[in-house]
Amino acid sequence: MSPGSPHPHSHVVPRHPRLDPLADRYAARTHGMKSSEIRALFSVVSRPEVVSLAGGMPAVTALPLDAVGSMIGELVSGMGAQTLQYGSGQGDPRLRERICDVMALEGITDASPSEVVVTVGSQQGLDLVTRVFCDPGDVVLAEGPSYVGALGVFQAAEARVRHVPMDDDGLIPEALEQALLECRANGDRVKFLYTVPNFHNPAGVTLSEPRRQAIVDIAERYDLLVIEDNPYGLLGFEHEPMRALRARNSQRVVYLGSFSKTFSPGLRVGWVLAPLAVREKLVLATEAQVLCPPSLTQYAVARYLDTQPWREQIKLFTELYRERRDATLESLDALMPPGTTWTRPDGGFYVWLKLPHGLDSKLMQPRAVNAHVAYVPGIGFYADGAGREYMRLSYCYPEPDQIREGVRRLARVIEAELDLHSTFDAVDTGTFRAVGRPAPTHTAETIVGPANSDRSED
Amino acid sequence: MSPGSPHPHSHVVPRHPRLDPLADRYAARTHGMKSSEIRALFSVVSRPEVVSLAGGMPAVTALPLDAVGSMIGELVSGMGAQTLQYGSGQGDPRLRERICDVMALEGITDASPSEVVVTVGSQQGLDLVTRVFCDPGDVVLAEGPSYVGALGVFQAAEARVRHVPMDDDGLIPEALEQALLECRANGDRVKFLYTVPNFHNPAGVTLSEPRRQAIVDIAERYDLLVIEDNPYGLLGFEHEPMRALRARNSQRVVYLGSFSKTFSPGLRVGWVLAPLAVREKLVLATEAQVLCPPSLTQYAVARYLDTQPWREQIKLFTELYRERRDATLESLDALMPPGTTWTRPDGGFYVWLKLPHGLDSKLMQPRAVNAHVAYVPGIGFYADGAGREYMRLSYCYPEPDQIREGVRRLARVIEAELDLHSTFDAVDTGTFRAVGRPAPTHTAETIVGPANSDRSED
Ligand SMILES: Cc1ncc(COP(=O)(O)O)c(C=O)c1O
Ligand SMILES: Cc1ncc(COP(=O)(O)O)c(C=O)c1O
Repeated sequence: MSPGSPHPHSHVVPRHPRLDPLADRYAARTHGMKSSEIRALFSVVSRPEVVSLAGGMPAVTALPLDAVGSMIGELVSGMGAQTLQYGSGQGDPRLRERICDVMALEGITDASPSEVVVTVGSQQGLDLVTRVFCDPGDVVLAEGPSYVGALGVFQAAEARVRHVPMDDDGLIPEALEQALLECRANGDRVKFLYTVPNFHNPAGVTLSEPRRQAIVDIAERYDLLVIEDNPYGLLGFEHEPMRALRARNSQRVVYLGSFSKTFSPGLRVGWVLAPLAVREKLVLATEAQVLCPPSLTQYAVARYLDTQPWREQIKLFTELYRERRDATLESLDALMPPGTTWTRPDGGFYVWLKLPHGLDSKLMQPRAVNAHVAYVPGIGFYADGAGREYMRLSYCYPEPDQIREGVRRLARVIEAELDLHSTFDAVDTGTFRAVGRPAPTHTAETIVGPANSDRSED
Repeated sequence: MSPGSPHPHSHVVPRHPRLDPLADRYAARTHGMKSSEIRALFSVVSRPEVVSLAGGMPAVTALPLDAVGSMIGELVSGMGAQTLQYGSGQGDPRLRERICDVMALEGITDASPSEVVVTVGSQQGLDLVTRVFCDPGDVVLAEGPSYVGALGVFQAAEARVRHVPMDDDGLIPEALEQALLECRANGDRVKFLYTVPNFHNPAGVTLSEPRRQAIVDIAERYDLLVIEDNPYGLLGFEHEPMRALRARNSQRVVYLGSFSKTFSPGLRVGWVLAPLAVREKLVLATEAQVLCPPSLTQYAVARYLDTQPWREQIKLFTELYRERRDATLESLDALMPPGTTWTRPDGGFYVWLKLPHGLDSKLMQPRAVNAHVAYVPGIGFYADGAGREYMRLSYCYPEPDQIREGVRRLARVIEAELDLHSTFDAVDTGTFRAVGRPAPTHTAETIVGPANSDRSED
């Protein structure tokens, strides 16, 4: 996974010929691959004294583990000939039917199981779609900020990412239109818009109802393909699931779904819903990549949907996440110094926080870890090195008390930075690099420019 | 998966703009994707009256399903926090340790778990390696015939496959050297040799001991990287496992392993063993592709290796496959008309059969299916349309009696072809197209030429 950021501390594997005798024979795409900001945190986050607001791990222990365990055990004992055997590349037909039932909850009522491809998490779904559509140099439009795993996929495909700004109501249609016009003027081949309409990762915002229609209209007008990535759609705290973009247009929208947040990420079961011609390409691509998805995990999900109270379980999950969201927002409201702002998610896992002017979340990170709190620096979510003043806070995994303690620690770290900052104001000590070298600014009115700078900097 | 054959009946999705409005925006690689000969047989093979000698499905029902079922059930009930959660991109450390134990059986005693990347089947391992090394137009050397799934990977990467001939002792070192010299003369960028040294799919032959050393020496002399794909190495009928190429050279050989044939393909657990610098690239590539392999299936394999008699189970599998191999060879000896020849595997799943002169396995296929027997036509295993006179017979899945019946039916079909053939000899009726339009000939002495013809024909 790679955020594709040109940050000097990004974790590039040494490519010195003496260290790697094969250095001269990698593919072009390989040279751009960098470790993501999230992976860099893995070792930190597993230390018990650190409160991690960094990871996006769902609260799987809230599942009825005994029931799920015996269900899966029986699938092996009773149906080993199927569950332990190779399956079809497109995925188990029974599961694909149940997936259509799940999508109906978001207004997608015309999907046929034949249009569904089961994938190894929705991550593989996005990789397949990108592989099928993108040649090197093609442009992908994506929200700014955007999901770090998606940026890694686009970078591996050597596609150029052009960010389109969002605000509290999600992606801004006018900005999308402007981006399309500019790409047209530049002669850029825009392959698709990648968007996370619900409870955005990392921004925490949701695309409003009128904007959904506006974006589908723009897609129609500009002959734009839309990739709708929706792992969180059923995890709303305040209202029923919103109608998917795919429910409004079945030909221009390719939909990505996942059981990672509604059931279990460790099973790695996601899916793509695509028009038949695209579906056929996706099946060929997945056969070349993995032959077929694991049979056991597919049967496990299908059986879970058939026999367990999965809708009630999703309610239970959302109750739990709502509590954690509340703990997060209450602590932020109570403790954060002035000048700090953040989004107010009504579903999903994430809050997107903006530091007071002049602070840099990446430079601050070691001090936060020293203070035993972890977050993901904002630069991980941009393909162009923007986002230094932002961070992502995840409330999905820690208990409310841990969250409160984590936010308390974070507030203290930010306050200490501000103190230092006012002492050394505007002096480029290396500590406040953002002051001496301002990060690119992002406002709702600005299009984030051509985002392939990472490759030239690598 | 795609064999990349330019056969007129290959299963190409229509790309007419009226049928697919997105036809003009696929990536270059997508246009070359075709369905494999094996997938085309799926529907046929599932009809109960057909004896399928086509599929490569292991005999998973020979596993102790109850024991495996309760083992996996307990992994979920007792360790759901781990087995249902996201894991690391490189794969579970405990499993990577056990994988090193497994590889020690083939003489790989210096492997460290840190050099292992767990993959979604070894198919994903090969895809990752290819993605990390191959740009479009790069050359991959591979045995002729070669594994159909590998050809699909190379085609998806837009690499050109150059076949190197084999005989009963496997890949021919002199032919490899000649291929390398010719590529050098042509200015081709050879990225690696892809080879299946043990119980080759589809050829059924094994690389002899002296040739193993010869190939490693050539790799050293020509600065060649070798991808050793070894899913069948532990499934020998006559002797202990042979020493892997990787055991002879740890820097020039990247090793691919799989639990698909020794335990279960439905779990999709394979691995890559690679020098650290390559390993790091592979981890970045797999994170972009799937984030991480499924946790549950990895824990299942690790626990299986820890607690179940897996070596005895492999013995049981090989006994069973040996019986089936015997049934196959005995029936072929007894029933096949003169002029038919075949390999005599001493392990693995496959026999590679050559039809009497003038017959074409692909054209004969509908008549075989009418006679209720299925095989895979040889052209699926070449990137250049060769192999029409060959077919692959798999003995892994049917019971010995079914195998005998299948071979009986096949012998009758071949005899009927021969009769017709002698009646209409050399008349191009459309039925015996191979007579009017001879297939490319392959002998052990001929290098199969530049193999990208499939792309120009598509
Ligand atoms: C927006 C988004 N898309 C996709 C994914 C990947 O999910 P999966 O586990 O289904 O691969 C995530 C996971 O965090 C995500 O946040
Ligand atoms: C030579 C070879 N390599 C790789 C594979 C793929 O195996 P896996 O199930 O591990 O992806 C197969 C499966 O038939 C094979 O025969």
